[in-house]
Amino acid sequence: MTAIELQGSAAKSAASVLMTSSTNIKNDALMRIADALEVKKQTILDANALDLDAARENGMAPAMMDRLALNPRRIAEIAKGVREIAALNDPIGRVDQLEKRPNGLVIGRKTVPLGVIAIIYESRPNVTVDAAVLCLKSGNAVILRGGKEAFNSSNAFVEVMREAVREAGLPEDAVSLVQDTTRESVNALMNLPMYVDVLIPRGGAGLISHVVANSKVPVIETGVGNCHVYVESTADLNMAAEIIFNAKCRRVSVCNAAETLLVDRTVAEKFLPIAKAQLDTKSVELRGCEETAKILGGGVVPVTDEDFYTEFLDYILAVKVVGNLSEAIRHITKYGSKHSEAIVTNSYDAQTRFLDGIDAAAVYVNASTAFTDGGEFGLGAEIGISTQKIHARGPMGINQLTSSKFIIYGSGQVR
Amino acid sequence: MTAIELQGSAAKSAASVLMTSSTNIKNDALMRIADALEVKKQTILDANALDLDAARENGMAPAMMDRLALNPRRIAEIAKGVREIAALNDPIGRVDQLEKRPNGLVIGRKTVPLGVIAIIYESRPNVTVDAAVLCLKSGNAVILRGGKEAFNSSNAFVEVMREAVREAGLPEDAVSLVQDTTRESVNALMNLPMYVDVLIPRGGAGLISHVVANSKVPVIETGVGNCHVYVESTADLNMAAEIIFNAKCRRVSVCNAAETLLVDRTVAEKFLPIAKAQLDTKSVELRGCEETAKILGGGVVPVTDEDFYTEFLDYILAVKVVGNLSEAIRHITKYGSKHSEAIVTNSYDAQTRFLDGIDAAAVYVNASTAFTDGGEFGLGAEIGISTQKIHARGPMGINQLTSSKFIIYGSGQVR
Repeated sequence: MTAIELQGSAAKSAASVLMTSSTNIKNDALMRIADALEVKKQTILDANALDLDAARENGMAPAMMDRLALNPRRIAEIAKGVREIAALNDPIGRVDQLEKRPNGLVIGRKTVPLGVIAIIYESRPNVTVDAAVLCLKSGNAVILRGGKEAFNSSNAFVEVMREAVREAGLPEDAVSLVQDTTRESVNALMNLPMYVDVLIPRGGAGLISHVVANSKVPVIETGVGNCHVYVESTADLNMAAEIIFNAKCRRVSVCNAAETLLVDRTVAEKFLPIAKAQLDTKSVELRGCEETAKILGGGVVPVTDEDFYTEFLDYILAVKVVGNLSEAIRHITKYGSKHSEAIVTNSYDAQTRFLDGIDAAAVYVNASTAFTDGGEFGLGAEIGISTQKIHARGPMGINQLTSSKFIIYGSGQVR
Repeated sequence: MTAIELQGSAAKSAASVLMTSSTNIKNDALMRIADALEVKKQTILDANALDLDAARENGMAPAMMDRLALNPRRIAEIAKGVREIAALNDPIGRVDQLEKRPNGLVIGRKTVPLGVIAIIYESRPNVTVDAAVLCLKSGNAVILRGGKEAFNSSNAFVEVMREAVREAGLPEDAVSLVQDTTRESVNALMNLPMYVDVLIPRGGAGLISHVVANSKVPVIETGVGNCHVYVESTADLNMAAEIIFNAKCRRVSVCNAAETLLVDRTVAEKFLPIAKAQLDTKSVELRGCEETAKILGGGVVPVTDEDFYTEFLDYILAVKVVGNLSEAIRHITKYGSKHSEAIVTNSYDAQTRFLDGIDAAAVYVNASTAFTDGGEFGLGAEIGISTQKIHARGPMGINQLTSSKFIIYGSGQVR
């Protein structure tokens, strides 16, 4: 067996133990992890320093360096997050309803773990802990395949977690890190359907489409967010300006950031200058349609059709004036990525039509798309934001890391 | 665009209409389909006669011919099934809970259609109607890719359904049949992620593994059922004999049929002759372990390790004597396909350990595995039995043909 097959096989064995482990034991493991992260923080910070040194040598951009960097406060926050996940209800072993069939069979659907979850992710080392802990809480073994930039940090986190898991009386192979950070190990994971039940790729569009197209393991796709804010004719324009500013500028590098502003023609002349004044404070580049340019005068770059398809992940915003709600919905349907979409309106009819007519993971009325996040949605934490329709859509918390089995109580029934 | 791309694009357009269609309109379409099937039954029977003639010329086995054949009674049953699906609650548009977050956002998860579902299936023409109607009821457009043996029958069914759908005021492209029945069209469907949201292959293991390995469209796997009945030491032995007889012999060609009998050593001597007497009435070939052969004397074929992995789909049953419940669970975990597993017991402890310890889509206590079926489980009807863990597991009814979206009501919140 190859190294990754051995790792898969060990994870599978661990998963069969976790499947029947009690809530108390799983929570004990989580609390031990939280404590150990704090007790052993210097080991983790030393490992992180190695990653930061390498990143500096390789000329990593400051924003990326910041995502990679750990400090005592961040580790304390990660530990706090672990304790919060421990405090959530166990998603496993729940039967919402047992139904008695006419023939006397009593049938219910019980939540069970998925088994072994493999997660491919990039440079943020905190994902290592978040993902592992969400999987453990939901009774799953996890194989982590982090990016090479954060390898030392992730490895230190994993060593701490494995020891804590072992001390709780669970198999340490419930959590493991792939030691090979080349594309080879991604390909190997995609070809392990006998050991891996689900593969969750997080990262660039290239990685994700490669995995989706080639994996023999079922995939939960995460990724692209080309999000819109539509300012409808009855909108409170100051509220709308706050919302587009927040949706665009809170963090431009994330998938729930807005990329296009759609403005109803009846309010465009009044609204666009208000919005621009706020966006200017962050030097947001506006790429506008002809009407937008006419209203705002200079400083608007002509928008292209390709811009409307683009997830800028930058201080750039496409702007288009539309004739009505239907045109806004058509635009979003054509160019959007079905991630997060918002309308600002005071019309009952408009909000209803927007909520019904937009096909996306999260549809907002009078709020910023920046809220699309497991924590903000009350899921406790998230393992990623699914952009596919099967299994789970939108932020995925512990309840989305489960499967089910039918349990059937009989008294000798035959068919 | 190729023919199949055109078909995919048309289905996608139809799906966007279905997404916001009312329950009444969808039910009206279903009732019109049911009526039209009866009114136009002669057209359907004429088409079916063409398939049967071709099958006869090609020397199709009688059991297969029987699955292919339609008659007025079968068509009436199909129409009755359509009316039953129409009577089910609409699975779309349901929000189980709206939760108010600390910041005042009100968030809920609403059921929505998946979009376009493509189904690949084999010779039973009734699947054409069942699948289409389940998809319509749940607001999905469907692309049917049936087997060539039933092509004329399926095409006639689809023509009837498209006309009824149109008369109900819905786009007829909500239901369509792929005209090309070669493997080419399967490959084409796997490469249409822009139009097809989910692909459900039903059929042989070769087809399914080909689709799973190569599809760019998310797949819901159906298929292999290597099911076990375990007779525990406290079992009512007559009940156990009835259950294994039914699980093996009700229909040997289906995935919920039992393939292996496991018997606890303490009752093997008493139980095996009782079971054999009943299985002999259907001339079931027993492939047994050494202990089984010793107890039953002649007429037992020595079982091989490969037999334990095999879904016989025939009047063949592997038999093994085991030392205890743990050994039974280990055997099922090693050789089983996680489909349907049964224990016959009077022990509270044994049933609990079996229900918890067996990882399968359906786990039975004191009942036949033959009940694994959407209708029997109260789902109304089924589009297939999922053997994967993500999205849906076990029989899939209309509730499993849905996705969800988060809806968020705000009052100007920014993050």
